Amino acid sequence: MKAAVASGPGGPEVLVLAEVPRPSPGAGEVLIEVTATAVNRADLMQREGNYPPPRGVSTILGLECSGRIAELGPGVTGWQVGEEVCALLAGGGYAEFATAPAGQLMRVPAGIDLVTAGSIPEVACTVWSMVFDNSKLAPGESFLVHGGSSGIGTIAIQLAKAQGARVFATAGTDVKVAACRDLGADVAINYREQDFVEVVKAQTDGAGVDVILDTVGAKYIGGNVASLAMAGRIAVIGMVGGIAGELNLGALMACRGTIYAAGLRARPLDQKAAIVAGTEAHVWPLIEAGKIRPVVDRVLPLAEAAEAHRILAASTHVGKVVLDVRRP
Amino acid sequence: MKAAVASGPGGPEVLVLAEVPRPSPGAGEVLIEVTATAVNRADLMQREGNYPPPRGVSTILGLECSGRIAELGPGVTGWQVGEEVCALLAGGGYAEFATAPAGQLMRVPAGIDLVTAGSIPEVACTVWSMVFDNSKLAPGESFLVHGGSSGIGTIAIQLAKAQGARVFATAGTDVKVAACRDLGADVAINYREQDFVEVVKAQTDGAGVDVILDTVGAKYIGGNVASLAMAGRIAVIGMVGGIAGELNLGALMACRGTIYAAGLRARPLDQKAAIVAGTEAHVWPLIEAGKIRPVVDRVLPLAEAAEAHRILAASTHVGKVVLDVRRP
Repeated sequence: MKAAVASGPGGPEVLVLAEVPRPSPGAGEVLIEVTATAVNRADLMQREGNYPPPRGVSTILGLECSGRIAELGPGVTGWQVGEEVCALLAGGGYAEFATAPAGQLMRVPAGIDLVTAGSIPEVACTVWSMVFDNSKLAPGESFLVHGGSSGIGTIAIQLAKAQGARVFATAGTDVKVAACRDLGADVAINYREQDFVEVVKAQTDGAGVDVILDTVGAKYIGGNVASLAMAGRIAVIGMVGGIAGELNLGALMACRGTIYAAGLRARPLDQKAAIVAGTEAHVWPLIEAGKIRPVVDRVLPLAEAAEAHRILAASTHVGKVVLDVRRP
Repeated sequence: MKAAVASGPGGPEVLVLAEVPRPSPGAGEVLIEVTATAVNRADLMQREGNYPPPRGVSTILGLECSGRIAELGPGVTGWQVGEEVCALLAGGGYAEFATAPAGQLMRVPAGIDLVTAGSIPEVACTVWSMVFDNSKLAPGESFLVHGGSSGIGTIAIQLAKAQGARVFATAGTDVKVAACRDLGADVAINYREQDFVEVVKAQTDGAGVDVILDTVGAKYIGGNVASLAMAGRIAVIGMVGGIAGELNLGALMACRGTIYAAGLRARPLDQKAAIVAGTEAHVWPLIEAGKIRPVVDRVLPLAEAAEAHRILAASTHVGKVVLDVRRP
């Protein structure tokens, strides 16, 4: 089968189309004939050699896909060969075929085309698990997401809004700020022009926000804690702004705050299956009701995976950059 | 009435016995004729001028007491004048009379004398709310408490042990380490001689502990995160080792960890009432069954409040330093 593989750690140019062996589904897994996959920031880190796949996982990039079930591994029930699905993967999505544990499959939401469906699993599962399942964002609470125009951000804004939260989003250009507002953000902040802490304080009468979804990391520890409401919760899923930074525990204690940091990829299969099931139960109905619209910046053929990585690195996109695997 | 009052911010010597007006219970409050109160580290901070009481609260020190109900304020039901009680206070315990919101009263556990009862509310409510109600320490999990021989530590070790956890404790002298072991700690660590991170790792086959109760703060952020098991939780209640320190979010994410910091004193009354009710429901039966023994280092008369503060500051005590208010 064809796959976009990294010829070695390095820049986007190491990604090349190659012929590789088709994987076989193990016990409890299915083989998916991939229609589309999408690029995540973690893919860029893995390509650079900084985010190795968990043991036993394909070294091919790709944390999500859509497609048709081509084969059921031993012990898989409840799915049929030929069904259209999308899936959360620990790797292997940038290829014509990928295997996934059956617990990580989801049906394609009604009204969503199969290419777009390949861009939903990673962001939907991440936002649902971090913001709702763990941080318990509740109706009437306030929510801040950094990078509101990213794949994560576009789903987070819409999901929080659909759940009845007041939504704050930060972004780095006026075009992105406008996109955040279009998606439902009540307050969209251009962080190059305004201090998000000051805007949050001013817009909440000094109270702060209840939940923050953060992809920046070290650089924003102080600002996030300063933006937190009493009993507020910070969920860290990325560290594009550095790994280690100063935490003022006095400030965290003053708001009885929580900082939680986690990813999806390294979790045990039972946890991933629970997150996938929860996401399908809670997020899919909102997509099908038109309350959440998956935002696709553009669709490129798999052969242009390198270009897709350049686009994500340049960060001029809004929403997801999708790779159509059937287009060579 | 007599009270130990601070003549101004400063060292222990500012604490003097004085005649002050007896307080009156407001709506929903009771007046307690105080038998005993106990010294908490927060009292030392308040005496130094670094921990002002919340608005509307007595400026007299004392975060807990025992005694007899002397008067019911308007609207109080379920309690009788003359009943023996102990109470969580936001202040005012170092006096012959103190007022408390009715929701912060607890009955005296059966088998506990009234003087000892004055030393239980603050530590029991803190440990129950932080370690169990919030951090969900579960049977079979592992637990680390820093300062295992402190008032907090002595209750934390016993409560965690009684709930079926494996208990690690740190302390600074061999006498204190032995005290931790006597109270049930499975692993007691003299932090002056051993690196607690190394001991935790060695004793858990590298897995780390599930919940950490920390009173040290900044100095231990790194060590606590390094000691954390997958999905581990750090509950910070004190900062004797500094307020601000480096947090490595990559290390926190690697264990999908949580850091939570909170105190009791500034919480809204409904939250305090819920914590007090939870503590009475979950901790009192263990005290009454003899599974948790309140540890009293010594009992001094109220007139020796300054000496009691010196003892806490010197940190040679094991358990609580109690002030008997009836002994002049």
